[in-house]
Amino acid sequence: MKKIEAIVRLSRFDKVRDALAEIGVKFFTLQDVKGFGLQKGTKMVYRGSVYDSDYIARLQLDILCSDEKADEVVDVIMKAGRTGEVGDGKITVLDAVHCVRIRTGETGPEAV
Amino acid sequence: MKKIEAIVRLSRFDKVRDALAEIGVKFFTLQDVKGFGLQKGTKMVYRGSVYDSDYIARLQLDILCSDEKADEVVDVIMKAGRTGEVGDGKITVLDAVHCVRIRTGETGPEAV
Amino acid sequence: MKKIEAIVRLSRFDKVRDALAEIGVKFFTLQDVKGFGLQKGTKMVYRGSVYDSDYIARLQLDILCSDEKADEVVDVIMKAGRTGEVGDGKITVLDAVHCVRIRTGETGPEAV
Ligand SMILES: Nc1ncnc2c1ncn2[C@@H]1O[C@H](COP(=O)(O)OP(=O)(O)OP(=O)(O)O)[C@@H](O)[C@H]1O
Ligand SMILES: Nc1ncnc2c1ncn2[C@@H]1O[C@H](COP(=O)(O)OP(=O)(O)OP(=O)(O)O)[C@@H](O)[C@H]1O
Ligand SMILES: Nc1ncnc2c1ncn2[C@@H]1O[C@H](COP(=O)(O)OP(=O)(O)OP(=O)(O)O)[C@@H](O)[C@H]1O
Ligand SMILES: [Mg+2]
Ligand SMILES: [Mg+2]
Ligand SMILES: [Mg+2]
Repeated sequence: MKKIEAIVRLSRFDKVRDALAEIGVKFFTLQDVKGFGLQKGTKMVYRGSVYDSDYIARLQLDILCSDEKADEVVDVIMKAGRTGEVGDGKITVLDAVHCVRIRTGETGPEAV
Repeated sequence: MKKIEAIVRLSRFDKVRDALAEIGVKFFTLQDVKGFGLQKGTKMVYRGSVYDSDYIARLQLDILCSDEKADEVVDVIMKAGRTGEVGDGKITVLDAVHCVRIRTGETGPEAV
Repeated sequence: MKKIEAIVRLSRFDKVRDALAEIGVKFFTLQDVKGFGLQKGTKMVYRGSVYDSDYIARLQLDILCSDEKADEVVDVIMKAGRTGEVGDGKITVLDAVHCVRIRTGETGPEAV
């Protein structure tokens, strides 16, 4: 089993979700995250005063899948998430030693 | 060391937390996450207008524990988190190669 | 590649961020998380009524780096994040089997 963590632009989320659905990824987990770093956030005007947001807003998708499926998932996210501009994001693949569906107790590839 | 990530229903959180306390899990990390997928969110009425929430709200618990403890933690979450209805959630176990308590510098099983 | 997850106090975030910048960590991902456990949150007054917050607010930093860099990153976070008081937080190191920069397709250490 693999756990794939993809950090993508908000503006590409719909494309990425649809591309995942097309290859049969039925479920994933989503979180709002902040990117901190050298590429600063844009200046924003909030309640009349300009301030530096200091971070960039991104979405993190967590996808559990079988070892065989992992390369395809990474590939699809890369294609759907890319604009070509700096800041398109990052994909990390981790090894999941175990995975269980709580309702049924199924484990491994059966559980995702 | 293992890192256990459990995605559970909000309605089962109290049960899961109490069950973990009973087996000596003293601390865990909690995040709000969104589940996206084929099982769509329920229609909701908000400020008078119906809209499709498009995702389901879930809680993610992250628990660091020793290799020996991991099976018990998974088991307890499965029992306390299960309703038997579709959507009960998922548990993933990852291998943590290292773990440190910042205050003391303790590492490994001593640090969780 | 390693994925380092550090849970730190909000009050130490600026110090940790600056210490990471000094050792060349150019980017990391940040999330708000809640710590649940025996060390209860402080009583808070909100809209006139006292309630027990039941959790402690912490920040989670996720940092991808090369295997060689990991020890230095952990060390720097420990030094910058420590107050010596109970509750300073935890650092976990996971193995990342793969990592891709979406814009360029670069993988491995080139991608972080
Ligand atoms: N080394 C890293 N560790 C953890 N998170 C990272 C790292 N690098 C990038 N991220 C996350 O990915 C998001 C997008 O990063 P970004 O696309 O700018 O990466 P990049 O390597 O700088 O690529 P680019 O050159 O295209 O800008 C960041 O906001 C951050 O959340
Ligand atoms: N493959 C997956 N990758 C990442 N997260 C997932 C995956 N499957 C489920 N989740 C997360 O777990 C939550 C609950 O999923 P759910 O319980 O519906 O899983 P399921 O496999 O569809 O089981 P069930 O048949 O009982 O519905 C989702 O909201 C999502 O956040
Ligand atoms: N075993 C654990 N699993 C997951 N998260 C944990 C664990 N222990 C601590 N954390 C996270 O780290 C945060 C800070 O924990 P804390 O610093 O109190 O750890 P500690 O081991 O109790 O150390 P101390 O003795 O210094 O209090 C918690 O709020 C929680 O989010
Ligand atoms: Mg960048
Ligand atoms: Mg389901
Ligand atoms: Mg503590």
